[in-house]
Amino acid sequence: MTNFSVSARESTSSLRALFNPGSIALVGATDKSGWSRNTFDNLQAHGFTGPVHLVNPRTEIVHGRRAHRSLSEIGQPVDLAYVMVPTPVVLPVLREGARLGIRSYVVLTAGFGETGAEGRLREQEVLDFARENELTVLGPNGNGYINAAARITPYGLPILSAPARGSVGVVLQSGALASSILAFAQARNVGISLLTAMGNEAMISVTDVMEYLIDDPATKVIALFLESVRRPGEFAAAARRAAAAGKPVVALKIGASQLASRTAQAHTGALVGDDSVIDAAFRQLGVIRVRSLEDLIITSGLLAGTPPLPGRRVGVVTPSGGASEIIADRAEQEGLVLPEYAPETVARLKEILPEFATVQNPLDVTGYVVVDRTLLSRALAIVAEDPGIDEVMLLSDLPRGVPADPELALSVYHTSSRLIQESPRPVVVVSNVLVDVSDFGRKVQEETGYPYVAGGIEHGVGALGAAVRWAEQAREVSSRAPAPVTAVPELPAGPTGTWVEHEAAAFLARNGIPVVPAELADDEDTAVEAADRFGYPVVLKAVADGLGHKSDIGGVRLGLASEQDVRQAHREITASLRAMDAKGIGTLVQPQRSGGVELLVGVVRDAAWGPVLAVGLGGIWVEVLRDAAQRLLPVSTADVRSALGELRGAVVLRGSRGHEPADLDSVAEVVARVGELALALGDQLESLEINPLLVRGSRVEALDALITWR
Amino acid sequence: MTNFSVSARESTSSLRALFNPGSIALVGATDKSGWSRNTFDNLQAHGFTGPVHLVNPRTEIVHGRRAHRSLSEIGQPVDLAYVMVPTPVVLPVLREGARLGIRSYVVLTAGFGETGAEGRLREQEVLDFARENELTVLGPNGNGYINAAARITPYGLPILSAPARGSVGVVLQSGALASSILAFAQARNVGISLLTAMGNEAMISVTDVMEYLIDDPATKVIALFLESVRRPGEFAAAARRAAAAGKPVVALKIGASQLASRTAQAHTGALVGDDSVIDAAFRQLGVIRVRSLEDLIITSGLLAGTPPLPGRRVGVVTPSGGASEIIADRAEQEGLVLPEYAPETVARLKEILPEFATVQNPLDVTGYVVVDRTLLSRALAIVAEDPGIDEVMLLSDLPRGVPADPELALSVYHTSSRLIQESPRPVVVVSNVLVDVSDFGRKVQEETGYPYVAGGIEHGVGALGAAVRWAEQAREVSSRAPAPVTAVPELPAGPTGTWVEHEAAAFLARNGIPVVPAELADDEDTAVEAADRFGYPVVLKAVADGLGHKSDIGGVRLGLASEQDVRQAHREITASLRAMDAKGIGTLVQPQRSGGVELLVGVVRDAAWGPVLAVGLGGIWVEVLRDAAQRLLPVSTADVRSALGELRGAVVLRGSRGHEPADLDSVAEVVARVGELALALGDQLESLEINPLLVRGSRVEALDALITWR
Repeated sequence: MTNFSVSARESTSSLRALFNPGSIALVGATDKSGWSRNTFDNLQAHGFTGPVHLVNPRTEIVHGRRAHRSLSEIGQPVDLAYVMVPTPVVLPVLREGARLGIRSYVVLTAGFGETGAEGRLREQEVLDFARENELTVLGPNGNGYINAAARITPYGLPILSAPARGSVGVVLQSGALASSILAFAQARNVGISLLTAMGNEAMISVTDVMEYLIDDPATKVIALFLESVRRPGEFAAAARRAAAAGKPVVALKIGASQLASRTAQAHTGALVGDDSVIDAAFRQLGVIRVRSLEDLIITSGLLAGTPPLPGRRVGVVTPSGGASEIIADRAEQEGLVLPEYAPETVARLKEILPEFATVQNPLDVTGYVVVDRTLLSRALAIVAEDPGIDEVMLLSDLPRGVPADPELALSVYHTSSRLIQESPRPVVVVSNVLVDVSDFGRKVQEETGYPYVAGGIEHGVGALGAAVRWAEQAREVSSRAPAPVTAVPELPAGPTGTWVEHEAAAFLARNGIPVVPAELADDEDTAVEAADRFGYPVVLKAVADGLGHKSDIGGVRLGLASEQDVRQAHREITASLRAMDAKGIGTLVQPQRSGGVELLVGVVRDAAWGPVLAVGLGGIWVEVLRDAAQRLLPVSTADVRSALGELRGAVVLRGSRGHEPADLDSVAEVVARVGELALALGDQLESLEINPLLVRGSRVEALDALITWR
Repeated sequence: MTNFSVSARESTSSLRALFNPGSIALVGATDKSGWSRNTFDNLQAHGFTGPVHLVNPRTEIVHGRRAHRSLSEIGQPVDLAYVMVPTPVVLPVLREGARLGIRSYVVLTAGFGETGAEGRLREQEVLDFARENELTVLGPNGNGYINAAARITPYGLPILSAPARGSVGVVLQSGALASSILAFAQARNVGISLLTAMGNEAMISVTDVMEYLIDDPATKVIALFLESVRRPGEFAAAARRAAAAGKPVVALKIGASQLASRTAQAHTGALVGDDSVIDAAFRQLGVIRVRSLEDLIITSGLLAGTPPLPGRRVGVVTPSGGASEIIADRAEQEGLVLPEYAPETVARLKEILPEFATVQNPLDVTGYVVVDRTLLSRALAIVAEDPGIDEVMLLSDLPRGVPADPELALSVYHTSSRLIQESPRPVVVVSNVLVDVSDFGRKVQEETGYPYVAGGIEHGVGALGAAVRWAEQAREVSSRAPAPVTAVPELPAGPTGTWVEHEAAAFLARNGIPVVPAELADDEDTAVEAADRFGYPVVLKAVADGLGHKSDIGGVRLGLASEQDVRQAHREITASLRAMDAKGIGTLVQPQRSGGVELLVGVVRDAAWGPVLAVGLGGIWVEVLRDAAQRLLPVSTADVRSALGELRGAVVLRGSRGHEPADLDSVAEVVARVGELALALGDQLESLEINPLLVRGSRVEALDALITWR
């Protein structure tokens, strides 16, 4: 983690230079290119005040202005070169720039890593040169950035209206989405601090820009569009630092469908990780995962405009019964709670509401708002004081057109704004439907301080749910740095292959994992002696070198109730092993356990994220329903408890169907210990699986295990 | 059904009069009421050309115009009275109107059925009077309607901009939502034919308006906001007629959360049905259920502008890799298929696309559209001819502002419009994000015939999925009228209470349901004789009058392997029944079955929808996961197969975990026969449950059953 931080500090200062140039050269500017035209127009139209130099070796006049034949000919200092020359000319341009002392580059030119092996070589050459010469390069194959705060917009696609300045920083792994995101943010009146299109991330990565935005005082929320998380370790460190800094990270990460994986691969050449691992990682890192561009911006806007929300209990105030019901449905999906209002709240509301109103949560103050414009605000003020809620959700639209009496409308919103600002609990405003904030709506927000309005019940309640969950997680995440590994496992040198049950079980037992007792027997008499010691019934399992799936060969005999049974089972098992020419033949004798709930606990190594812990209930739960919860290692017992709580089969652990309830603390302790052990085994470990881990009340025992080494 | 149709025809003609008045009286008009002001303003502002008479007994001037003291004083014919007088005056106004020959009424006044028992009486009085005098009354407690096609807008809440004329008919059980729906429809450029706020539905119900809209040539799609389906039989008939007429019904039905049920109850006094029954009913009736106001309008708009879509295979054409990936994720959620393009399609695309483009589905024609504006259209034309797809989805935005060269922009859209219209396969256009259609966007659509643009990938792909599923279902639904009941069951007269297993099983067996053999034994010897006949092992079950849950009292003994076991089990069971003072004591002897998959098949009577069939897998599937599929009766074997296919446990039926695959045709036949039998039993039946229904390959047998009579 220390390493990441140091590199982050370094790039933060070079990124500051990249994103805040006083002068810009457009290299390869030409009337023939839409990108050139767009970049030039964007710089002119959106407020860049420094000099813009056009460079073209073969044309005198470009975009109606005199062009220079090379960077050298400009004869003035250049802070940023925006490079759109043909692919083979990129490196020569960087060489010339480096000689001239130009430190920052955006490379729009494509034809690098995204095209295959040859392109990757070209990209590496550029990267090597840049590193040697301490250049900062954004791209290649990227459209540039929009520094809305400083009105610096070297961006290759059209920007129609000037992006509002604000506190959402946007990082995109797809430059083409920038126009849509800017349009939508503008429609929602969500202000942007900085937007960057990453391109191939040869040098500057998503994580680098995240680190920059964490340190950027203009940025409160970081919004990401991700095709892949290229450097999970760095990403995790940045996400933790963002949580510690109180800056939410909201991410639209594609690749939930297999089809999307294929698309992304073709598009960027990047590996799309297993989607459920991403889910788990984001949850643990406090990164809010959204599923649409609308949610990306609406959620970011809400988080930028709202203090951390204290809890899930929401008091809802609306002027419509129908909308109340839609909100109730939607709130339940989001895990929000709408508690009944306290008796004094109800009494006070009854005083102001018409007789035919029903006082409840969600509150419908009724269509009487048509008669009494202050009704909604007065109800809001009462609900905001209810002791049983954490925050208020107000359903209210900004004006769509210019009203007949604009001053009156402004004064009504002014009153509401004051009430909201003075409210003892945070107030989140959500509109009925997702329509653009109108010009008059903007004016209302500017002139009266009316807060951010989350667009529409569907996305607005979703954003509220995300904000509440984020606040819950952020405290946890920021306090939960990766735990140091305490226990060094007893490990024989250089293990290889697969450890079959008794070997794995003995290893687990030596390292503090409770394992059902077992004795190896290489003849009938030994098996019977062991069975006598354990008491009947017992289980006999086949043992042989490298034998994995015992059940497939009839190698597991349950419910052996007598000496005779044990002898026969031992004979049959060893006979069939001999028939297979197996080595190291014998049986494992265990007492037979009955009842309880079977869990599966596994650790596998994800190519991107490293060791991942999965827990689930055995049998159909994991095999048919794939009902497993995943967590990146390390995990605390609290992590394990939250993972167990996510399972659809959680109800079984709580004691449904006549089972004794599982002692979740005991389970969590054993599972966390498994995680700790797996982490301590480091790179040697390929996978570790306990299946089943039997739980009866507080008794937790591994009945079988399999460890695969790399 | 005949009944519904006749009443529907009648109300269609009276509704035509209600919705198309030539003159309107506002009774109870006053400057003090926002509703009065709004209704008057709406009629003035949105194009009503007939006379509007204001009636107020105590004020001479209202809304700046001379008012009449009563309906009688108007002295001119009145087609519609819009009534907003105090509650006790409503009936006198209707009396006066009836005398004057006024046939149509909107009653805005509240204080009727929604307030409790007394109000219900008042409402009944109004209803009785209206029926006797052949008056048509919309409401009470409703805001009126907006006939956008005819520009007649007697509506009590503000309508800011004139609703565009179009082909979506909207029916609302919450008047307060009308403003939001109109605003959103306007933002999406979706035209409305008629919007009605139903109020208490004393006389005119949602179903009546649906029937009217089915016959209304201006209406192509029916959009509903429902708090409850008040008359399910009529609703089902209307939905079937809509499907037969090729008019999709899209419904936002609230009440998915328990909280919402409570809210709705308080709000309308209506019963909110069990949400999963609603899901099942809508699915069978071809009604598209949506979850947000945005989806209600976006989906309706898409259906109004698109021919029935032929299938799930979509060819996607976009100018953005990032958007392609979001679309791929979203399409998978919707069950849409994006097949690979045929070799000739790929070859033709490669000819026109830049070298660095990857030719696949979804297709990203790349940012090269910045250079070549025709690229997207040319790619669209090629993809539309691909033999492996059913329709094309084009990702394209309408212009947000007025472009620098409006004529050029119009001509580009003109070319696209022609291509889309001439396309051999339907083309659905979806925009990147959900922003309002701008004024210039409207102009583009009007002047170039550019089609409907579904707003944003999130909602647009959802609407596309809904439209595809609708087209699949509509054919089925319209051909599937309720089947006549063929087999009359053998039923003893006047059954009551609960039939315990042997009684229920014998009844099922007599009526063609395969049941595991069983014999009643009232002494040990008879039990042993039966066991000998079946062969061992056998099962013994306790029998006594009215005994339901046998397992709870230890009344089920499995795996009895010998005469001795049977004797002992019989002795123990009868002893414990005697200890309970039970009557009609004995045991039931059955051969013990092993292996196979256990299903639960039940029929229960839903208060609103009548008999509902539920099927699920036994054990944790229904008990813990509540994994059951429901269908309204009657059901065909195809219905049952589709219900089985919906189960999360469907994979178990297909033979996972070493089970023999179930013969789904055999299962469906038995389950459909259960439905037929339950339906034939009519109102006498309270519930019928077979649990388990054991399935091994094509062998399907009821092992236990319970029938409860009303």
